[in-house]
Amino acid sequence: MQTPTLRDVADAAGVHPATASRALNPATRGLVNAETARRVIKIADSLGYRPNPIARGLKTAKSGTIGIVIPDLTNPLFPPILRGLEDVLEPAGYTGLIVSTDGDYDRERTLVESLRSRQVEGLVVATAMLEHPLLEQLHSEGVRMVMINRRPRGLDVNSVTPDDGVGIELAVRHLADLGHTRIALLAGPQTTSTGVARSRAFHTSMRDLGLPDDPALSIECATWTEAAGAAGLRALRAAGAEFTAVVASNDLIALGCYDVLAECGLRCPDDLSVVGFNGMPFLDKLAPPLTTIAIPHHQLGGEAGRLLLEAIAEPDRPARSVLLPPALVVRGSTDSPGRSGRPTRQ
Amino acid sequence: MQTPTLRDVADAAGVHPATASRALNPATRGLVNAETARRVIKIADSLGYRPNPIARGLKTAKSGTIGIVIPDLTNPLFPPILRGLEDVLEPAGYTGLIVSTDGDYDRERTLVESLRSRQVEGLVVATAMLEHPLLEQLHSEGVRMVMINRRPRGLDVNSVTPDDGVGIELAVRHLADLGHTRIALLAGPQTTSTGVARSRAFHTSMRDLGLPDDPALSIECATWTEAAGAAGLRALRAAGAEFTAVVASNDLIALGCYDVLAECGLRCPDDLSVVGFNGMPFLDKLAPPLTTIAIPHHQLGGEAGRLLLEAIAEPDRPARSVLLPPALVVRGSTDSPGRSGRPTRQ
Repeated sequence: MQTPTLRDVADAAGVHPATASRALNPATRGLVNAETARRVIKIADSLGYRPNPIARGLKTAKSGTIGIVIPDLTNPLFPPILRGLEDVLEPAGYTGLIVSTDGDYDRERTLVESLRSRQVEGLVVATAMLEHPLLEQLHSEGVRMVMINRRPRGLDVNSVTPDDGVGIELAVRHLADLGHTRIALLAGPQTTSTGVARSRAFHTSMRDLGLPDDPALSIECATWTEAAGAAGLRALRAAGAEFTAVVASNDLIALGCYDVLAECGLRCPDDLSVVGFNGMPFLDKLAPPLTTIAIPHHQLGGEAGRLLLEAIAEPDRPARSVLLPPALVVRGSTDSPGRSGRPTRQ
Repeated sequence: MQTPTLRDVADAAGVHPATASRALNPATRGLVNAETARRVIKIADSLGYRPNPIARGLKTAKSGTIGIVIPDLTNPLFPPILRGLEDVLEPAGYTGLIVSTDGDYDRERTLVESLRSRQVEGLVVATAMLEHPLLEQLHSEGVRMVMINRRPRGLDVNSVTPDDGVGIELAVRHLADLGHTRIALLAGPQTTSTGVARSRAFHTSMRDLGLPDDPALSIECATWTEAAGAAGLRALRAAGAEFTAVVASNDLIALGCYDVLAECGLRCPDDLSVVGFNGMPFLDKLAPPLTTIAIPHHQLGGEAGRLLLEAIAEPDRPARSVLLPPALVVRGSTDSPGRSGRPTRQ
């Protein structure tokens, strides 16, 4: 545990500790005689001296770290986003410190506090709720932030999100093209911008295509999880709704539909077509492979990283919202509704 | 951005800053008159004062954070481990800061350095290679660490790992019970303890069961990924090996087999039975659902958290290795080899 101190380096080099400190800090190295700087650096290396960036951070407010706040790491959506983020942050000399809130607001507050006290230079936030006092507070305190995937209402903050409206329209049009008319919606939580935007787009698309936008055909899932998706489909069926296809507001909700179909001995797509949203990994290997709206998640992370670096470099630059284009990926979970002759009572 | 300082609190309370500091720190509060302490705390609250735990950390070496080093967040194995870890660390007042190395050694060194300079009180490490100079160095420097899933050779360090030997034996015995005799191994990287332990257990189990342990039937995958699994199975087939079943050293390698079978128009399990290892999420929804050796990952994370808390509380306690029991989960990817009449030339 005996680690060499700055004083050890200075003594070995025969210079004052302040000189050694300047020589070892790239930002101040120019203030020191070049020959002396080289000697100090060489001695520091040979002793295994590590500067203490926290002590330095207290003076310069440069920690070289970014806090990344994720709602649920078990959603396979996030790892590709994180990879994209790090591919941009690391070459710029930043380390991402990831925390996962499990959708718990108190926990989020504690974790963000912990990141801030570690002097992160900015936050990338994927936990935004429509009403989000913590994010409002951070914004008002001038914390540099970028929202990913979703964003709070009425907050003028940088964000990178999928174009939810275009994505849902692609899903509904695909089902309509297959001949479906009675299409149900398993909506995401209406406390999130993505939940609201995808639901609105569903209702608009149904009406634009002249299809029945029957309130009995849509239900809100409490969370973005498989379990909530299963509960949503069970509730629709229990209420006696009749439909031949489902638009699920994300892929995990769609996987919950698979569970219910298996329980009831129904087949996908024969008895029910299912479309997901996100294009998370492994969907091509499911039984049946899931038709989905694919979002370029790696790019989403990369764009968020670039926005944050720009916000750090130019704090006065106005906030921007980047929308990324979705793409329909047709797989085995959707087909025409004719197979079983008539709309199945789900 | 104007945040109140300790001096602002002290001035408003009419006390010396050192007194305000003692009053605000639970560890030193007893040194201050109780009435004064209450007044200082109340004023700090009303001003919105936040103590700077880094400055405090420099003196007390208590940061309340644990660094968690993961090789690849896109492997769905890790999120449940992280959940288990946090379920233990958070009630104990610790925040986990997660970093992902992508298996890059230089990157790992930078990330660990960054965590240490942020005064983490301990590390949970899932990146261990058999030969791992960085971990040896950290260990020699007295850093409190727990290895998860795998561990370096010859290092006396806390670890929580699956019982690889028992797991692989369950897999081989299951295939033998179905009637398979020519069983291939897609081994994991032999630079990792799990790769070596699972390979050894495979060869031992084959011999114990009186089955041919033919060197032509096993191949090492370069990484623990789907792509490396696919490359491994392609190489075995190209070499003309004949086998009716494959033991894949993890689930992602098994998924790579699915890709190759689809390319070649072969069916699982009719033409080839496949067993994975780990029991990662969503395997039950694959086509076909994957038979695997399930590891209790949430528990694995929890045990690691407990070992680390104990190591922090009692630094002199000797290192322990915790082995967790695996379980065979039989699904649709394994069946008897008789279906196509004779061993398929893979």
